[in-house]
Amino acid sequence: MILVNGAVSDTLGAADRGLAYGDGVFRTLAIRGGRPQSWTRHYHKLAWDCDAVSIPCPAEEVLRDELARLAAHEPGCAAKIIVTRGAGQRGYAPPSEVQPTRIVMSSALPRHPAEFVQSGVKVHLCSLRLGFQPALAGVKHLNRLENVLARAEWSDPDIAEGLLFDGEGNVIGGTMSNLFIVERDGLATPDLSRCGVAGVTRDRVIEAAASHRITCRVEQFGLGRVLQAQEVLLVNSLIGAWQVRALGDKAWARGTLVASVRQWLDEEID
Amino acid sequence: MILVNGAVSDTLGAADRGLAYGDGVFRTLAIRGGRPQSWTRHYHKLAWDCDAVSIPCPAEEVLRDELARLAAHEPGCAAKIIVTRGAGQRGYAPPSEVQPTRIVMSSALPRHPAEFVQSGVKVHLCSLRLGFQPALAGVKHLNRLENVLARAEWSDPDIAEGLLFDGEGNVIGGTMSNLFIVERDGLATPDLSRCGVAGVTRDRVIEAAASHRITCRVEQFGLGRVLQAQEVLLVNSLIGAWQVRALGDKAWARGTLVASVRQWLDEEID
Repeated sequence: MILVNGAVSDTLGAADRGLAYGDGVFRTLAIRGGRPQSWTRHYHKLAWDCDAVSIPCPAEEVLRDELARLAAHEPGCAAKIIVTRGAGQRGYAPPSEVQPTRIVMSSALPRHPAEFVQSGVKVHLCSLRLGFQPALAGVKHLNRLENVLARAEWSDPDIAEGLLFDGEGNVIGGTMSNLFIVERDGLATPDLSRCGVAGVTRDRVIEAAASHRITCRVEQFGLGRVLQAQEVLLVNSLIGAWQVRALGDKAWARGTLVASVRQWLDEEID
Repeated sequence: MILVNGAVSDTLGAADRGLAYGDGVFRTLAIRGGRPQSWTRHYHKLAWDCDAVSIPCPAEEVLRDELARLAAHEPGCAAKIIVTRGAGQRGYAPPSEVQPTRIVMSSALPRHPAEFVQSGVKVHLCSLRLGFQPALAGVKHLNRLENVLARAEWSDPDIAEGLLFDGEGNVIGGTMSNLFIVERDGLATPDLSRCGVAGVTRDRVIEAAASHRITCRVEQFGLGRVLQAQEVLLVNSLIGAWQVRALGDKAWARGTLVASVRQWLDEEID
């Protein structure tokens, strides 16, 4: 099901700035048992991202109602919300009065092999390096060609994700997930102030760690620390948490923190 | 007039990857007297850009026919061609069989004040700094949020364009144009191997300079050299060449090379 500005439709205006320039932002979240998961956080992040690119964010109740329509139709699905700057004349200058376009659509929840959760995942080391753009860092905007190019680096279905680095060799995350490493004295996750997408599940893990009195550092680090970590975890709103089982020649035994992280993510009442 | 995959339409599939990820490329060119200007060059550049992001480029004759349909309808217009990776499932992984979407659309030629050509233009110094992404540098892809944010920095209609720099202080070009500076011993234009869009008109000026035995260096330089240049020119397929009259506190008298560049651009038979 696709709702474009509230109406069932599978098309959108060809002059939309979302197409012309990737001039918009998006969210992907799970609907399970008819209920959007972590909706308050997702809406908060959507509003934040809209603000970062100066697009008026649709009202929370409008989007909540539209998600409810998806959920009535498909109680277990992946929901995607796109908000663009709407239709525009040719040229980069934003229209003086923006009428945002909102697209709320469902698709099947991804069906990954059960072993991805049970035994962990094999990860590709991407050769593409993310560029720095502090004005857009952290924002889940529609300019995602870097992710597309990085994801195109492998086609082996046994490889679940690719690890992305910036031009200075700092690890940033997966192509579609955020990364945590487990070290002797706590967790660490990459600083995303120059590139990358700061996901809702990343925030949830950072906060849950704090509430369980586990240190979680947000900082720059490179491949060396990833390879020496006790556990490496990938998280997002659809997969929850995966442990990395193999990265190049390096293999990890099954860890213990991944189960805790999954429990933290299950516990939260939204 | 908008043609989507050859059919008159003003809509596009909401699941198109052009919208989802900016997963595509585009071209803007002038149709004058019913004839697309510099079409061979534009097609060549479109094919190059498609190749850079591994999207199959539509055949030349297909696009030429579609431009002819626009031209029959509007003999003087701006034509825009968008080629995307087509519809896709959720997720960054490109479909195994890509069916590109092509959109060919016309809009009115921009009507800039006559003084922009006669006396030159006033230019804003953008504060946004372009990020480096060698994998996409030079390509006119649909990930243009940097240009949108930069263009949103001013709304004064007397300011015709904004000048963009990279994070190291090298000038890259205008938000919608390429830049040349005129110095005592020739021309120089920014090296676009790390960011920016290498336009067709830029190529034409570089080649025309060579054929007129005028040196044109393609290299890195910063604001200092721009301010000390005898003339500063902005070029693209719709505006032709504008001389910069004012940039911050710096003002330039009317130069002489801008007229030559306009003549070079008029001379070329395509």
